[in-house]
Amino acid sequence: QVQSEAFPDGTTDHIPLRGRKYDIRKPHISDQPITLKNWHQHVHWLNTTLILIVPAIGLVSMYWVPLYTKTALFSIAYYFFAGLGITAGYHRLWAHTSYKATTPLKVFLAAGGAAAVEGSARWWSREHRAHHRYTDTEKDPYSVRKGLLYSHIGWMVIKQNPRRVGRTDISDLNEDPIVVWQHKNYLKCVITMALIVPTLICGFGWGDFLGGFVYAGILRIFFVQQATFCVNSLAHWLGDQPFDDRNSPRDHVITALVTLGEGYHNFHHEFPSDFRNAIEWWQYDPTKWAIWVWKQLGFAYNLKTFPQNEIEKGRLQQLQKKLDQKRSVLDWGIPLENLPVVSWDDFVAESKNGKPWIAIAGVIHDVGEFIANHPGGKALITSGIGKDATAIFNGGVYNHSNAAHNLLSTMRVGVLRGGCEVEIWKRAQSENKDVATIRD
Amino acid sequence: QVQSEAFPDGTTDHIPLRGRKYDIRKPHISDQPITLKNWHQHVHWLNTTLILIVPAIGLVSMYWVPLYTKTALFSIAYYFFAGLGITAGYHRLWAHTSYKATTPLKVFLAAGGAAAVEGSARWWSREHRAHHRYTDTEKDPYSVRKGLLYSHIGWMVIKQNPRRVGRTDISDLNEDPIVVWQHKNYLKCVITMALIVPTLICGFGWGDFLGGFVYAGILRIFFVQQATFCVNSLAHWLGDQPFDDRNSPRDHVITALVTLGEGYHNFHHEFPSDFRNAIEWWQYDPTKWAIWVWKQLGFAYNLKTFPQNEIEKGRLQQLQKKLDQKRSVLDWGIPLENLPVVSWDDFVAESKNGKPWIAIAGVIHDVGEFIANHPGGKALITSGIGKDATAIFNGGVYNHSNAAHNLLSTMRVGVLRGGCEVEIWKRAQSENKDVATIRD
Ligand code: HEM
Ligand code: HEM
Ligand SMILES: [Fe+2]
Ligand SMILES: [Fe+2]
Ligand SMILES: [Fe+2]
Ligand SMILES: [Fe+2]
Repeated sequence: QVQSEAFPDGTTDHIPLRGRKYDIRKPHISDQPITLKNWHQHVHWLNTTLILIVPAIGLVSMYWVPLYTKTALFSIAYYFFAGLGITAGYHRLWAHTSYKATTPLKVFLAAGGAAAVEGSARWWSREHRAHHRYTDTEKDPYSVRKGLLYSHIGWMVIKQNPRRVGRTDISDLNEDPIVVWQHKNYLKCVITMALIVPTLICGFGWGDFLGGFVYAGILRIFFVQQATFCVNSLAHWLGDQPFDDRNSPRDHVITALVTLGEGYHNFHHEFPSDFRNAIEWWQYDPTKWAIWVWKQLGFAYNLKTFPQNEIEKGRLQQLQKKLDQKRSVLDWGIPLENLPVVSWDDFVAESKNGKPWIAIAGVIHDVGEFIANHPGGKALITSGIGKDATAIFNGGVYNHSNAAHNLLSTMRVGVLRGGCEVEIWKRAQSENKDVATIRD
Repeated sequence: QVQSEAFPDGTTDHIPLRGRKYDIRKPHISDQPITLKNWHQHVHWLNTTLILIVPAIGLVSMYWVPLYTKTALFSIAYYFFAGLGITAGYHRLWAHTSYKATTPLKVFLAAGGAAAVEGSARWWSREHRAHHRYTDTEKDPYSVRKGLLYSHIGWMVIKQNPRRVGRTDISDLNEDPIVVWQHKNYLKCVITMALIVPTLICGFGWGDFLGGFVYAGILRIFFVQQATFCVNSLAHWLGDQPFDDRNSPRDHVITALVTLGEGYHNFHHEFPSDFRNAIEWWQYDPTKWAIWVWKQLGFAYNLKTFPQNEIEKGRLQQLQKKLDQKRSVLDWGIPLENLPVVSWDDFVAESKNGKPWIAIAGVIHDVGEFIANHPGGKALITSGIGKDATAIFNGGVYNHSNAAHNLLSTMRVGVLRGGCEVEIWKRAQSENKDVATIRD
C-alpha cells in the first residue's frame, strides 16, 4: 500500500482503510476520453449495479410479487430509518459534527446508513467535506457545474480519479470506533441491514419473505438513494439563494420534502455546522425534529446552532447585494458634477425667456414636459418657474413624496453658482440688508 | 354670500356653487365638544339619512320584498356601474386627471357617480385632493389618524368645520361643464340615477318595481357606499407599504377586491396621477381594465402612467430603508477605531502564552470559543493561531463564506500596528531581504 502524502494543514490524501491495492500515482482511466471502445472501463460497475441494475430488477419483479399492506407500511418506516441514517447520521453528525451522539444512537444511525446503501459513513463524510470545501470547483466530488445528472448519479456511475477530489481532514472520524468499524465491515453491514433484516422482519412478522426482500429491501433502497442524491443535484439547482449567491446551493421546499428536510441548502452551505437545515418552525425538516427528540431522550447533545445575529447579517447582505444590482440599472438622473454651472441671473433670464426652469435645492430643473402631468395641477407647478422653489417643494406649499424627489432628479439641467440660497442673498442685497454675498 | 379668500398659490377656500347661505367666518358647531345636550346638532342629518337610516330601512324591508334572480343580477350590474362612476370617474378622472375622457364617457361616469350617492364629483374631488395634499394631518378631511371608523363614515356623519379641511385648486373642475352641471343639479341627478332609473328598469323590464326600488336602489346604494368608503378607511389601515412608510396608505388585495381595484393605495398616494392602482397584470384592478377598454373604444385617451424607472426607484428606496433599520439592530462587531492597537511581537508573544489569537486582514481575533465549533474542524483553525492567516482564510486554504467573515468580525480584540502585511515584512527582515519596514 502506498503511503499518501501528508500536508502541512493537517489533511491527508485518501487512504483506503481496507487496503485495496491501487497505486495512487499511476495514470487513471479518467484521464482518457470516453470512447466506444473503452466506455466499459469508465463505468464503475459496482456502483452501477447497486444504483441502477439491482433497482431495475426490483422494478421488473414487482409484476410477479404482490404488495401487502403490512409490507408497504413497513417499507415506508424502513425508508425513514435508512433516510435518517444518511441525513441525521452521515450528514449532520459525522460529516458536519453539528451535534454529539451517544453510542446507542451512533449504532442506530450507522445501521440506518448502511441500509441506505450509499457507502460507509467514513467515505461519505470525506466526499461530503470535500464537496463543502471545494463547492462547484474541479475538486468538488459532485459539482453541479458538470451537469444535474452528473451531480445526481453520474459521479458514482462513472469512475472518478481519486486524486481529483479535494483533500479534507477526517482525523475525527478515524478516531470514532463506530465509523471505523462500519467502514471495515461495510459489505457485511449493507447486506445485513439493507436486505436480510427487512426480509426477515416481513417474513417472520407476517410471512412475506419475498415482498420484504423486493419492496422493503431492493425498491426501498432505490427510493432512499434517489431521494438523498437530490441533495447533491436538486439542492444545487432549484430555488432561492437568500444567504449567498456566489455558489450553487439553493433553498427549496420541494427539495426539503424529498430529502427529509435537507432542502434549505443555501443556508446549510453557509452555516454547515448548524444542526438545522430549516430555521423557521413551519419549514419541513424532519431530520432536525428527530435530532431534537433524541436530545430530549438523552441520546443527542451539544446541538450546534449559529447565532441568529449571524444568520440575519447574511440574509441582509444578500438582500443588499440584490438591491445594489437593481439600483445600478436604474436612472438616477445626471450626476451633479456633470451639470453646467449657471448663475442666478442667467437662470432667471432664461426662465423669463420661456424656459420652464425651477430651482430646487441649488439645482435647476426643466419641468416643461411634466407640467401637464403634475399631480398637483398646472397652476401650482407653474408658480415655481424662475424661482427658488426649495421650500415650496419641501412643504412650504406641499411636502412632496419620495417619488417626486426621484422624478425631480431626472429633470436636472444645471447647478446654481453659489448654492441654493442665492435667491435670498439676492433679495437681501437688493433690499440693502446686511447679508454676506459671494461675488465671483 | 361671503367671498372666499384667494390665496397666492392659486387655491381658494370652498365656495358652494349652489350658494348655500352660511358665513364661513362664524363659529362652527364643531368648535364645541359633543355633549348629551348638543349631540343632535353635531350630527350631519342629511348624510346620516343617506348613509345609515335609508339603508337600515332597506335592510328591514327585505323581509317583505322577495328578491328575483333578474333583479339580483341587475343589481350587481348596477353596482358596478355606480362603483365605476366613483373609481373611474370621480377618483381617477376628476380628482386626479389621470386620463382624459370624451363627453359621452364623462356623462356616463357622472351618472354612475350620482347613482352611488356619495356627493357631487366636484365636492368629492375637492375633498379628495385635500386628502392627498394633507394626508394624515388635521387638514385631511378623512384622516385615519382619527380612527378607522372616522375615516370610514365618521367624517360624514358628524358635521365638520369647512374651514378645517385643507385648500386645493379645483379650477380645472370649475371649467368642466359636466362637473358643474352635475354639481348644480345634484339632488335631481341622485334621485333619478340612484332610485328612479333602477326602479323603472326592473319594473318595465320584468315587472318588479318594488324589488328594483329596494334591491337595485336602496340596498345597492348601501353596498356601493360601504365598498368605496373602504378606500378611505381600510386602504389606510391594512397591508404593506412598498413605496413609502411615512404616511398611512397601504397596499392590500382585500381592499382591492372590495373597492374595484383601489386597494394598492400606497402606490396610489405615491403616484396619484397614474391611471393604474395595480401595476402588475395579475393584480385585481377592474377600474384600470375598464379605462383601458374605453381607450380601445375611443372614449378615453391620454392615459397617464409614471415611468417604470421611477416606480422601481421608489420600491428600492423603501426596501433600502427597511434594510437599514434591520442593519442597525444587528451586532457587527466592535468598530476598528475602538480596538486597542497591538504590536506584531506582542501578538505573537500573547499567542505563545496561550491566547487563541489569529490575525486576519490586520485585525486580531480571539477564536477561543469558536475552535470547538469550527465547521472546518479544530486542526485547521488551530493552525492559524499566532499567525497572519489572511491568505489562509481567504482561499489560501479555504475561501470562507460571507457568514464566516461576519462571524469573524464579532471576534475582534485588537488591531495590528502597521497593517496586515507585518508578518511578511518581519520575515523578510529576519531573512535580510530588501523590504521597506516602518519602525515606530
Ligand atoms: C414648485 C411648485 C410645486 C408645487 C406648489 C407643487 C404642489 C403639489 C401638490 C399640492 C401636490 C399634491 C397633489 C396630490 O397629491 O393630489 C403635488 C404632487 C406632486 N408633485 Fe408637485 N408641486 C410643485 C412642483 C413639482 C415639481 C417640480 C415636480 C417634479 C418632480 C413635482 C412632482 C409632483 C409629484 C410626483 C406629485 C405626486 C406625488 C406626491 O404626492 O408627492 N411637483 N405637487
Ligand atoms: C485560520 C485558519 C482556518 C482554516 C484553515 C479554516 C478552514 C476552513 C475550512 C476548510 C472550512 C470548510 C469546512 C466545511 O464547509 O465543511 C471552513 C469553514 C468555516 N470556517 Fe474556517 N478556517 C480557518 C479559520 C476560521 C476562523 C478564524 C473562523 C472564524 C469565523 C472560521 C469560520 C468558518 C466558518 C463560519 C465556516 C463555515 C462556513 C463556510 O463554509 O465558510 N474559520 N474553515
Ligand atoms: Fe451541497
Ligand atoms: Fe452538508
Ligand atoms: Fe388615501
Ligand atoms: Fe386618490
